[in-house]
Amino acid sequence: MNIPQIMERMIKMIKKLPAVGPKMAERLAYHILKMSQSEIDDLINSMQMARQIMKCCNICYNFSDQNPCQICSDITRKKHSILCVVETPQDLIAISKVKNYHGFYFVLGGALSPLDGIGPEDIRINKLIKRLKNANISEVIIATDTDSKGEVTATYIAKIIKKLNIKVTRLGYGLPVGGNIEYADEVTISRAIVGRQEM
Amino acid sequence: MNIPQIMERMIKMIKKLPAVGPKMAERLAYHILKMSQSEIDDLINSMQMARQIMKCCNICYNFSDQNPCQICSDITRKKHSILCVVETPQDLIAISKVKNYHGFYFVLGGALSPLDGIGPEDIRINKLIKRLKNANISEVIIATDTDSKGEVTATYIAKIIKKLNIKVTRLGYGLPVGGNIEYADEVTISRAIVGRQEM
Repeated sequence: MNIPQIMERMIKMIKKLPAVGPKMAERLAYHILKMSQSEIDDLINSMQMARQIMKCCNICYNFSDQNPCQICSDITRKKHSILCVVETPQDLIAISKVKNYHGFYFVLGGALSPLDGIGPEDIRINKLIKRLKNANISEVIIATDTDSKGEVTATYIAKIIKKLNIKVTRLGYGLPVGGNIEYADEVTISRAIVGRQEM
Repeated sequence: MNIPQIMERMIKMIKKLPAVGPKMAERLAYHILKMSQSEIDDLINSMQMARQIMKCCNICYNFSDQNPCQICSDITRKKHSILCVVETPQDLIAISKVKNYHGFYFVLGGALSPLDGIGPEDIRINKLIKRLKNANISEVIIATDTDSKGEVTATYIAKIIKKLNIKVTRLGYGLPVGGNIEYADEVTISRAIVGRQEM
């Protein structure tokens, strides 16, 4: 039996979502058929409402229900004059849960990836430079992912920022807390040795 | 920063979908914010259209754009008088891609799982019995999953069907084609030995 065309279309649309493979898309599609009318209405309504209300902050490019966002309009942060550069809004939220960072943020909207054709003009590097030139920032913490794309991006940005005479740091590498040394990869252990701290 | 309430709501709705964990739900939610208006319209429209058009077949309980579905209305299948019992419509599609089965199907809509409180009345066992009593079926192939829930379901159904004097078979166990014996689990190898075939 062939899957009816209307079903194929829904599966194709769902497959476009990130991290959704063909099998997962099929599973979600059949689940959507089985959902009650109120469940599907709630899902669709929540998506449409969020898209209506959430805005991209003009200063840090995070998504927020206000523009400028809560963080950029928080004047108590001004005394810190630190800017943390992240790839995505989700990274921003992860870091904002940490109690020992009270500075500002900047969301790049991705990472450099020459193999996928993503260059400096595809992420907000120019906007970051503009912000650094106009705002009173004394240190930039680069908090891109520690995979190869994130590393390339960090190196690229660091070079540019140094030219502006602003201090650049990178989040520390090492063993994740609660981790097991036995299962840590060699590169992480090697970085943890370099970054060892006196007790 | 707390995630805005409207965003939390969308994440909560997405998290209700099967196989979507908290991180995946967050990722999908932020992706939905970034989608263009036409992309989101296409996605929502495809979901709504599929729900409008797709029906549950009254005979086999598969989803189809017609009722009875293509398979149940295919008279050439009548000569086979075999019924294949599956857990989900996706299982039905997987089996229907195989060229050497031309019988009918029956979708249970799940598997027995006493630990999750899913008993015989929660899946279509009574409807299956009714169908077997009314249709001219000489053999039932049970094609439930080979995990513990699928096995319990197969055993339970087989007992009932035998009482109706209908032949019951189960899909053969063994090594998956293209598989590597080194990585096969012991239970599978043991089943493959029992099910060995002369060459």
